[in-house]
Parts: sequence; C-alpha cells; structure tokens
Amino acid sequence: MDHFVSIHLDRGSDKPLYIQLYEGIVRLIEEKKLSPGEKLPTIRKLSSLLKVNTVTVVNAYRLLEREGYVVSRVGSGTYVRSAVKSINEGEMREDISEERSSVHQVPYDFAGAFIPPEYFPVEDFKRAINKVLDRDGGYAFSYSESQGYLPFRHSLGKYLAKEYAIEVPVHLIHVVSGAQQGIDIISKALLDFGDVVFVESPTYPGAIDAFKSRGARIVEIPLTQDGPDMDELVARLRLKPPKIFYTMPNFQNPTGYSYSEQKKKELLALSRKYDFLIIEDDHMNDLYYEERPLPLKNLDAEGRVFYIKGFSKLFMPGLRLGFIVAPEPFSKKLQEVKYFSDITSSELAQRALDVMLKDGSFYDHADKMREIFRERWNIALKAMKKHFPAGVYWSKPSGGLFFWITLPDGCYSMNLYGKAIKNGILITPGDFFYPDRRPTTSFRLSIAQIPSEKLEEGIKLLAGCIAELLEEYRIDPLKGDMYKPLL
Amino acid sequence: MDHFVSIHLDRGSDKPLYIQLYEGIVRLIEEKKLSPGEKLPTIRKLSSLLKVNTVTVVNAYRLLEREGYVVSRVGSGTYVRSAVKSINEGEMREDISEERSSVHQVPYDFAGAFIPPEYFPVEDFKRAINKVLDRDGGYAFSYSESQGYLPFRHSLGKYLAKEYAIEVPVHLIHVVSGAQQGIDIISKALLDFGDVVFVESPTYPGAIDAFKSRGARIVEIPLTQDGPDMDELVARLRLKPPKIFYTMPNFQNPTGYSYSEQKKKELLALSRKYDFLIIEDDHMNDLYYEERPLPLKNLDAEGRVFYIKGFSKLFMPGLRLGFIVAPEPFSKKLQEVKYFSDITSSELAQRALDVMLKDGSFYDHADKMREIFRERWNIALKAMKKHFPAGVYWSKPSGGLFFWITLPDGCYSMNLYGKAIKNGILITPGDFFYPDRRPTTSFRLSIAQIPSEKLEEGIKLLAGCIAELLEEYRIDPLKGDMYKPLL
Ligand SMILES: Cc1ncc(COP(=O)(O)O)c(C=O)c1O
Ligand SMILES: Cc1ncc(COP(=O)(O)O)c(C=O)c1O
Repeated sequence: MDHFVSIHLDRGSDKPLYIQLYEGIVRLIEEKKLSPGEKLPTIRKLSSLLKVNTVTVVNAYRLLEREGYVVSRVGSGTYVRSAVKSINEGEMREDISEERSSVHQVPYDFAGAFIPPEYFPVEDFKRAINKVLDRDGGYAFSYSESQGYLPFRHSLGKYLAKEYAIEVPVHLIHVVSGAQQGIDIISKALLDFGDVVFVESPTYPGAIDAFKSRGARIVEIPLTQDGPDMDELVARLRLKPPKIFYTMPNFQNPTGYSYSEQKKKELLALSRKYDFLIIEDDHMNDLYYEERPLPLKNLDAEGRVFYIKGFSKLFMPGLRLGFIVAPEPFSKKLQEVKYFSDITSSELAQRALDVMLKDGSFYDHADKMREIFRERWNIALKAMKKHFPAGVYWSKPSGGLFFWITLPDGCYSMNLYGKAIKNGILITPGDFFYPDRRPTTSFRLSIAQIPSEKLEEGIKLLAGCIAELLEEYRIDPLKGDMYKPLL
Repeated sequence: MDHFVSIHLDRGSDKPLYIQLYEGIVRLIEEKKLSPGEKLPTIRKLSSLLKVNTVTVVNAYRLLEREGYVVSRVGSGTYVRSAVKSINEGEMREDISEERSSVHQVPYDFAGAFIPPEYFPVEDFKRAINKVLDRDGGYAFSYSESQGYLPFRHSLGKYLAKEYAIEVPVHLIHVVSGAQQGIDIISKALLDFGDVVFVESPTYPGAIDAFKSRGARIVEIPLTQDGPDMDELVARLRLKPPKIFYTMPNFQNPTGYSYSEQKKKELLALSRKYDFLIIEDDHMNDLYYEERPLPLKNLDAEGRVFYIKGFSKLFMPGLRLGFIVAPEPFSKKLQEVKYFSDITSSELAQRALDVMLKDGSFYDHADKMREIFRERWNIALKAMKKHFPAGVYWSKPSGGLFFWITLPDGCYSMNLYGKAIKNGILITPGDFFYPDRRPTTSFRLSIAQIPSEKLEEGIKLLAGCIAELLEEYRIDPLKGDMYKPLL
C-alpha cells in the first residue's frame, strides 16, 4: 500500500480525480513499483487511504482495465497485467487480424470493425500492382502531386458520379492515406485552439482525438434513430455555433443509424443559417443492403460539406487510401496541409487502385461484399430477435457492419464486456464512443469478423451473458466490481 | 488597373503588406478578373496607385512569380501565367519526375532533390511485393500495430545497429509514412501554441510548416560549415530555451554541411543544460562519399534525441516510408498521435521493405547509389572549381546530393533563378529555405537529377549565367526587375 500513498491528487486541478488516480497507478506500474500479477487494494481500502469517493476509485480501476493495465476477476479482485495491452479499436483488431494463429483465441469476435483478410481482393490487387510496375517502372515510386495521382483522381470522380450522383471537378478531390488522415488534415486546415466542434453522440473516437489535438472543444449532439436530436442541436447552435459538425449520415459508427432525408436537409439549412462547415465521414455507404443511401454531399449545393471516403471498411484497411472532396475555397489549403503532413500518399497504391477502378474489379468486389454481409446482417437481425432477453434494444440499420445494443438502465456494458470475454465473446463497450468515455448501457456489435455459421451461436451465447448480468444486477446491484456511471 | 484599386491593404494588420498585396492579386487571378497572359502594372505604377513602397510591390510580384502565378520577362514586364503552377520542392520535382515526356523540358535540372526513377530498385521491390502477397495474402493489407509491423521494426533495429552502431529496443521504433510525417507526428506530440522551436538557418521548409501548424514560434540559428553558430545558439538559449531543436547534423538540406564531432557533443550538452529535445532528421546519411557519418543519436546517452530516418532520398520517395526512434518517455504518446494521424502506415510497403532488408538487396542498392552519386559529386566539385567566377563560394560536403552556393553580396539568387531557367537550368533559390522566405544570395544546387554526362556542361552554363548577372549588377544594380531584399 505504501506506493499508493505516494500518488499525488490535486483537487484544484481541471483534471478529474479518477484520471489523476489512473495516471498515478499507471506510473507505479511503469516504474515497476507494482509488478505483474500484483493485486491492487480493494476499492474501499484505496478510497479511505486516499480520502476519495469510492466512485473515483471504481472509475480509475475501470479505466486501468480498459487500457489494459489491469484485469479484474469477479469475486477476487483487480490485478496488474503481465503485458500491457490497451483496448482500443486498433488493438482489438490486432488481436484477431495480425497473427493467423491468434484468430482462434476469441471464438466469437463481435468487436473487429473490418472485413477479414480472407475477403480482400488480393489476387486482383496483385495483378493491378504488377501491371503498374511493368507499365510505370520507377515512376510508380516517385512523388507525384501532393493532392494525388491525377488519373486516379479522375477515376474517383467517376466513381462518385456513378455511385452517388456527385459531380465534382478533379481539382477538388484530394487523395489521403485513409479516412483518419482525412479527418486529421481537415482539422489541421480548419481548427485553431478553442474552436468548437459538434459531434454525434456516440461517435467514432478517432475523430475526437484528431479534433482534440487541435485544441478544439467537443460538444456532443445526441443521435437518434433518424439523425441528430434537432431540438438539442438548435439549442446548442443558439448558444454557440461550431466551426465544424462531424457526422456519419449513413450507417453510423457505432450505432448503424442513418439520417432521414428530412434531417439531412435540415442539417444543411442549419449550416447555412449558423455558418458552420460539415465533415461527412462516409466509411460505409457502399455496404447497403436495401437502398443505396445518398451522401449528404449529394445535397450540398452551397459547398459546406467536406466529404471523406475511406476504403478501409469495404476494401482493405492496410492499403491506407481514401479521399476528400473539399469545398472549393478550402482546396488549396488542404493541399498545403497534406504536403506538410506526409507530402503525398503511396504512389503505388494509388496507381494500383486506379487500375481496379478502371477495369471494374473494384466494383465487382463491392458487389460481392454486399452479398456476403447482407447474409450476415439477416442472420444477426433474426438471432437478436430470437435470443435477446426482454428489455434489450438494438438498432436495425439497413447497411454497414454495426448494431448498437442497449441494455436495461443501470446495466453497464463494461460489465457485459468483462463477462462476455470470459465466455470467448468480444464486444465493444459503448463507453469507448463517448468523448469522456463515460460508462454506458450500450455496446457495439459488429458482424465484420464473425463467420455466418458462428453468428447465431455467438449471439445466443451473448444473450446468455446478458441474461446472467441482469440476474446479478437484480440480486446485488451494488456489487463492488460493478461499474457505476460517472455523474 | 481598376481591379487593383479594389485590393484592400490593412496597414494595421500583423500581416506584411507585400503578403496582403500578393493575396489580393492571387484573388484577382482566381476570380478571373485578371486573365492568363495579361500584363501586370509596372512596379512604379502599382506602388503609386496603392500608395505603397516600391519594395512592397517588388516583393509581392516576386512571391507571385515564385508561387507560379506570374512570369516576368526581363525588359518586358510581368504576366499572368496560363496554368497556375506553384514552385515548391514537391512541385518542382513534379516537373521532372511525373511525366517521362517532360524530362526533357528542363535540360539541366539542379533542383530535383530525389534520385531519378530509373535508379529505383523496382525489380527487387516487385519480387519482394510478390513474395509478401504469396506468403501473407490478405494479411498484407490488414491493420497491424499503429507503431508498425513488428518484424519490420526488428529489421530496422538491425539496420541501425549495423550501419550506425545505434542499439535500440523495437518498442522505441515507430514506423511512419516518410520523414515528413515523422516531423509532423513529433510536432503534434510535443508542441503547443506558442512553444519555441529552434531551427538551423537555412533549413528544410517542410519542417517549418509542420511546426508552424502547431502554433510554434520559429527561431533561426545560423548554420556554419561545421554546425550551428554556437555563440548565437547560447545567446538564444539564455533568452529562452526551445522545446525542440530541429537539426540535420549530416549533409544538411540545403547546405550539405555536417556537424563536427565537437559541436555534436556541445549540442547534446546544451540540450541537457537547457532542457530541450532534439529532432535529428537523417534524410541522407547513407549517401556518404568519404567516411560514414555517425548520427547525433549515436551519442545520445540521455534520450533527448528523436531520430527520424526517411527512405525517400536513398530509396524511393513514392514508397512513403520512414521511422522514428523515440526517447522512451515519449514512445506511448507517439503511438497515440500516429493512430489519430493515419492509424498506421501501409502494411504492404512495410512487409516488402522488410523482405529487402532481410535478403540484403536494400543494402546492395545503397552501395550502388553511393557509387553513382560519388561520381557525380566528384564531377560537380571539379566543375564548380573550374567554371564558377571569382566571388562565388560553395560548400564542400562529404556526402549527400546538395551544394550550397553563395553569390557576391547584393546578387540575389532569385534573379539567377530567373536567368537560369531561361537557359534551361533549374536551381532552387535559397529564399525557399528561410522561414520568412527572405531574398538571399545563396542557392541550392542538387546533383540528384542531372546525369553525369550533362553535369559539367550544366555547371558551365550556370557559371555563365552567374557571370552575366554579376555583369548586369555592375552596370545597373537598381534595375527594376531585380529583387531587393526585404528589410
Ligand atoms: C467512422 C470512421 N472513420 C474513419 C475511420 C478510419 O478509417 P481509415 O482506415 O480509412 O483511416 C474509421 C475506422 O475505424 C471509422 O470507423
Ligand atoms: C530534410 C528533409 N526531411 C524530410 C523530408 C521529407 O521526406 P519524406 O519523403 O521521407 O517524407 C525531406 C524531403 O525533401 C527533406 O529534405
């Protein structure tokens, strides 16, 4: 316990106490004052030692667990982990995609957000690469324009026109190394310290991090099934309009929700009225199972929307390609920012994907993926209906890879996460998708990684975990190792 | 002239008047109020129209020319260009590397900073890619760790140990998409608004842009042949130590200068005393022609140096690969920043280069390049000695691709640039390498793009241009189209 007394908590600081406590304990672990396998004090003990509320300790432990520093064993306590491993989208994915041998470590993976490597169009891509190398030689590895290889930008323009009826001149198309870089580059081009960014709540955390890195203040706009809560949005706009509204209008990550036509139009009208810009992150539009959804950009007569398209979800994440369609006045600025960010994206990757867009194999691949995941989506919808206990709600998206499941009040998804993983099931707790990572009763269920034949079984098992959890809550809702929400 | 009256100049603004004027004219061009081919007013006319100093107009026109908006013809005037093309390192390169057909447009290219595509090890790389695709299938396109593919990081560790006697654990090696991204990521990890960054003067402008994007204040430390001017450095440190000192200790861009052992040690000692961090940008160490130079990192006992190694200059720029060796305490932060910047670098590129590091073909390529450029370097040194007029000075680097040439006082390199280009010779004016882009009498001469057989001839022609310029200066040093320095 000695080490813990040394943790300095500054009650006058802006930093929440539980974060300070978390950081103090991380330091103890990193300085090897706590060794792997060592048990942490109980919540009660530590809270009385440091004279903080038990909730503070609970939240700090929770964060430690989520960041992979500790594991908690129900009924036994919390222990320092042997190898530090953090749970974030990237690294969760790693668990299952990096080493083939580890694929079987988690039998039911509902966390991985990306299509498994078996489905990548490797043969087509290999053919395209070799074609480029034979045709272009060393030029496939020279710098071209920062903004992207021109013939590729032409192909992207055609893709947008064909698939989404968006007509844009190539000088507004900017190639980037994935959608994440798109977000980062736009942030660097537009945001200064103290600027306000509105985000959907919940939302994709990678975007939050990029905005925060520019010193932006994040304001959450609650998302409902058909788009933002408009009353809340308007109230917030009246208070102080943002510089940017960041949105995924179709098949949102994590909820799977899509905006209604009506709300798309309202959002654009508001952007005019309150003079803000919009980032539309189109990570998933191609994976529609009913109607093809139209991007917001499609309605953007005034040039307020930065449209970002990534190829990770549909195509191959490790390729690191995507593009931005910029409103005219910002196009030059984006080019400059791209230049000092990483000069240009891989020339070879651009040229190879260009070949696949031109010979049609890209489109064939998209069609194939739509079929495969439409099947999974059907199975998942049926299985949830059949197995999930009463009181559990879930979204019914018409495309994409994600469902958003909400447990009964007070039943936190981090607890389900802990229980599920012991049963070989991986989910992504909803906390992850809120800027403050507050505990929530919702979680994301992804059908990207789990094969069709294990899908119903996995959902059934997960339903069993939920039922168990509900049971435990009824018996002892104040059990020590249950996470409480931050107030 | 009507349009010009509409240009609004705000004398109370922080922005220099010549920049405001430049921006005003750019707007006229972009709004098509000035058409391609149209002649701009003379310096005298515009200065009296707008009631500004002639120097302001000269500087604005100069900037317009450099940014590619206008061309000036000696004795005739300044004209709006037909296609807007900006001169920056990236786009200068483009001129010569993008389209094979354009290679012959500029017969003597001393500007391009990169080895020509003909020398890229395309066959070896193709073999490596195909090997990876056959071996790893879709996994070559999955996300692995943000920090980089682990076996590749092992190979990079071995490369550092073998070539530079730097021993670092793989968890401190971070793969990035080129050195530029390395600079940007470190900036994002370390710099907040108002932080001070020391840079060598002159220096690589891509770094300045990345630092400025974080709101950093740039302080220039004059560079001498064997490292920074130590008196000036110490004086600046006493005033206010920086957060970061950005340096290229070997074969600097643009000067080709290298630090003496003594100055390397002094810099490290100062970094301890004044508690700042160092970014060592190793863009060129492998191209040594005499002794292999040791990086600063090699002497960094205390962990103050972020070592960045790019593979663009020696290997292939369009590959977009490089790595950072981070001091231990910053390693985790870099990982987070990389994640929100672009998640991870191309998996395929990492795996393919890993193959080439392991089978030795990377090292063979490096040896070959050293031979080729050592020859050019010898020719260039001899040719400059033979042809350059008295009063011209140049650096004698022992590696790399750049020479730094200084003309007599008052003889600005932008004027030489204009004259040279009319003779089919491309150089990079020194102005480009100062944060404020002030006119200088120095320029960079690169031997990357020009073939050995044209090297002496090119230098001889350039020497002729210099001689002519000196002549003109003697006759009429106040000629209207000569650039004057900013005061
Ligand atoms: C909504 C959203 N945007 C952007 C990204 C980043 O994707 P990319 O791989 O294209 O950078 C992701 C990846 O998870 C995402 O879910
Ligand atoms: C000194 C220096 N650092 C970094 C870079 C960027 O190189 P990379 O292609 O590795 O991003 C360059 C390229 O010109 C350079 O000259």
